[in-house]
Amino acid sequence: MFKKIILGVKFMVGVAVLGHGVVGSGVVEILLKNKELIKARSGDYISVKRVLDILNFDGLSYSNIFTKDFSDILNDKDISIVVETIGGLSPSYSYVRKCLEAGKSVVSSNKELVAEKGYELLNLAKQNGSSFLFEASVGGGVPILRPLQTCLAANNISSVEGILNGTTNFILTKMFQEGYSFEESLKLAKSLGYAENNPEADIKGLDSVRKICILSGVAFGKMVRPEEVYVEGIDIVCVEDVEFASSINCVIKLIAKAELRSGGFVSVIVCPMFLPSSNKLCAVDGVLNGIAIKGDAVGEVLFIGPGAGKFATASAVISDIIDIVRYGGKGVPYMLFNSNNFSISNFKENSFSFYFRLKARDVNSLKEVKSYICANLKAPVFLKRKNQPELELAFKTEYMLEGEVLYFEEELEQFNIVKESKIRIASC
Amino acid sequence: MFKKIILGVKFMVGVAVLGHGVVGSGVVEILLKNKELIKARSGDYISVKRVLDILNFDGLSYSNIFTKDFSDILNDKDISIVVETIGGLSPSYSYVRKCLEAGKSVVSSNKELVAEKGYELLNLAKQNGSSFLFEASVGGGVPILRPLQTCLAANNISSVEGILNGTTNFILTKMFQEGYSFEESLKLAKSLGYAENNPEADIKGLDSVRKICILSGVAFGKMVRPEEVYVEGIDIVCVEDVEFASSINCVIKLIAKAELRSGGFVSVIVCPMFLPSSNKLCAVDGVLNGIAIKGDAVGEVLFIGPGAGKFATASAVISDIIDIVRYGGKGVPYMLFNSNNFSISNFKENSFSFYFRLKARDVNSLKEVKSYICANLKAPVFLKRKNQPELELAFKTEYMLEGEVLYFEEELEQFNIVKESKIRIASC
Repeated sequence: MFKKIILGVKFMVGVAVLGHGVVGSGVVEILLKNKELIKARSGDYISVKRVLDILNFDGLSYSNIFTKDFSDILNDKDISIVVETIGGLSPSYSYVRKCLEAGKSVVSSNKELVAEKGYELLNLAKQNGSSFLFEASVGGGVPILRPLQTCLAANNISSVEGILNGTTNFILTKMFQEGYSFEESLKLAKSLGYAENNPEADIKGLDSVRKICILSGVAFGKMVRPEEVYVEGIDIVCVEDVEFASSINCVIKLIAKAELRSGGFVSVIVCPMFLPSSNKLCAVDGVLNGIAIKGDAVGEVLFIGPGAGKFATASAVISDIIDIVRYGGKGVPYMLFNSNNFSISNFKENSFSFYFRLKARDVNSLKEVKSYICANLKAPVFLKRKNQPELELAFKTEYMLEGEVLYFEEELEQFNIVKESKIRIASC
Repeated sequence: MFKKIILGVKFMVGVAVLGHGVVGSGVVEILLKNKELIKARSGDYISVKRVLDILNFDGLSYSNIFTKDFSDILNDKDISIVVETIGGLSPSYSYVRKCLEAGKSVVSSNKELVAEKGYELLNLAKQNGSSFLFEASVGGGVPILRPLQTCLAANNISSVEGILNGTTNFILTKMFQEGYSFEESLKLAKSLGYAENNPEADIKGLDSVRKICILSGVAFGKMVRPEEVYVEGIDIVCVEDVEFASSINCVIKLIAKAELRSGGFVSVIVCPMFLPSSNKLCAVDGVLNGIAIKGDAVGEVLFIGPGAGKFATASAVISDIIDIVRYGGKGVPYMLFNSNNFSISNFKENSFSFYFRLKARDVNSLKEVKSYICANLKAPVFLKRKNQPELELAFKTEYMLEGEVLYFEEELEQFNIVKESKIRIASC
């Protein structure tokens, strides 16, 4: 089924694209535009035979290949690779399953599908001798999953850490560079098309959670489920926090981190963090994504680039198609390993340095809470900003266990204060 | 020859390592240390059967596999992959040719060999159904050649630009961060083992030239020969230049750049450049390497990591071995294309903004040359530094063609001055 061979000449690989949105249309356009280049690099012409979408797209040069009927694709024996760019679980999950069961290879840009069903779909592909690849599901156009599985394959990976969501990174960058509030930055992001109308999955960190789950699977062979990840969104970040961060030469970024701990534990967290200016991810601004990988042989490597966008994401999708063609349509030997060697670490045993911002209700309470902090925390550092209100108190702590911090926060409740912010501080 | 299959069980891939220096010994150590991991990821156990070196290495746990006789490796049918880490052209070139002719695959970390003979050796591998891979020859541990050939395969690449030499980057970083002179920084680099006793290939830019030639081959399918590349070393950079660069928020880096120009030309240059602080490569400090790639679909992606070092380089070498094993020992379908579509551009037609530093022999000459510059250059910007000597003049130009600049320099000879520095300025 994969390719017709006539007198030894390879003869066109048939591809279908599910969903003609931003990514799907980008895939079709690049496959058409760079047809000869892609043929030279994959060894075969790649032809888009069908596009599935519930909408009509009249007037396109390839309007004739649209269908609303999935079975037109499933039953077409000349289609050996199906690209899924619909997003969400329904109907994507059932479509992808059916394609894999029919022996077709599937390439997906759908992080929800991969984070929730990736392991199952990889096994299904394996059973059917086909491939399930999803480079575009993390980092958009940034090469990351394949380099992890190929270029870094000699390494025990110890941590994966990055800025995985361009929308929130754009918002935080504007808050730092222009002094905008969260709401102003979000509005700008929407007006530029960087944020969706309902941006909750980005803002609240769920998008980054899905991506770090996928990275954890590929890097450690440990599929972490999204609901197992501790997550905080960027909506907790205020202009005041931006000012305090700046006062100690930090920026704030939404960091997703998965780390291998001793004893076979994986720790995974997504939250805004203070990054000191010496941290390599500081330079990752605007809609860029950046991912740092640590391995026992290589040390640390860093990948930076466009984490979203029509053609950047299409670039990643098509790299998967090309790989499948190069491997002659057989299963490409990359996979998520679902090892049972690792467990999720107890969140309370993670440790960080923390930044706190409090507001006292009166001067006396301010004095009391300050005394308590000095007496009970190891070497707290009090922070200052311009025009700081008299009753505001901000400080950073030494490294503390999450469990210790929770206890400290409970103790704070005895004072006549409001806890306004608590943000973790990353190391260099 | 590639693998023995007994009752369907894959059974060990035999590897030999030529040269037991820094890289070669790192390869052997990681193959031993991460044996099970590498087996899980490649699908096969990889066994180092022989190590070739002219020296004796008694007391190692694997002393018994050393040989001084290359034919022990060439004639061993159980060795299907040979790793070449000797460096230089002789005897590497003849050894690699013989291995490929015998149907063995070869992995090399030798940038001189790849830059000089890469195209020929790739063709030889192809003829013999084997592979010639060299990820470690550029960027040390940084994944770059394979991502270019796989993850970015859907893209027309328009430029490749980077810091490709860790030694010179360390020296320049120390000049900026510590105010050291070039000689002091070089001395420190030697004492830390970052610079060789004879560091000329690094300092004068030849190492970077070889690497940008390899990158050009992979990115554009155009093998540029090292002698075709315009090159300046970092020994032209003085403390005064560091101060002027800092005064306009720039750092100086040794930049290697290959760019596709309209009309089918490739422009390649290696030289120190002023980088504005907004340039992404500014953060690439110390012994790190950083490479930025522009493609028509992806936009720009950036790869940063350790450009040298025993285990980082071994990580890249072993990634090639794993790829060969995954492809079942057949030729992996990556290659340098030697397209005839491109020619080397005329150097004089490249354009840059330039920084100049002059010393006048007397006050009158200073005035005269300044008047000449104001009258003959478009919008020159004169620069200032602390404690600037009275007779020193520094300025930057608008974009000018290299040809125009050469003419301008000739004209300067009529004045009673000494031209002390001329350094190109990169864009953001």
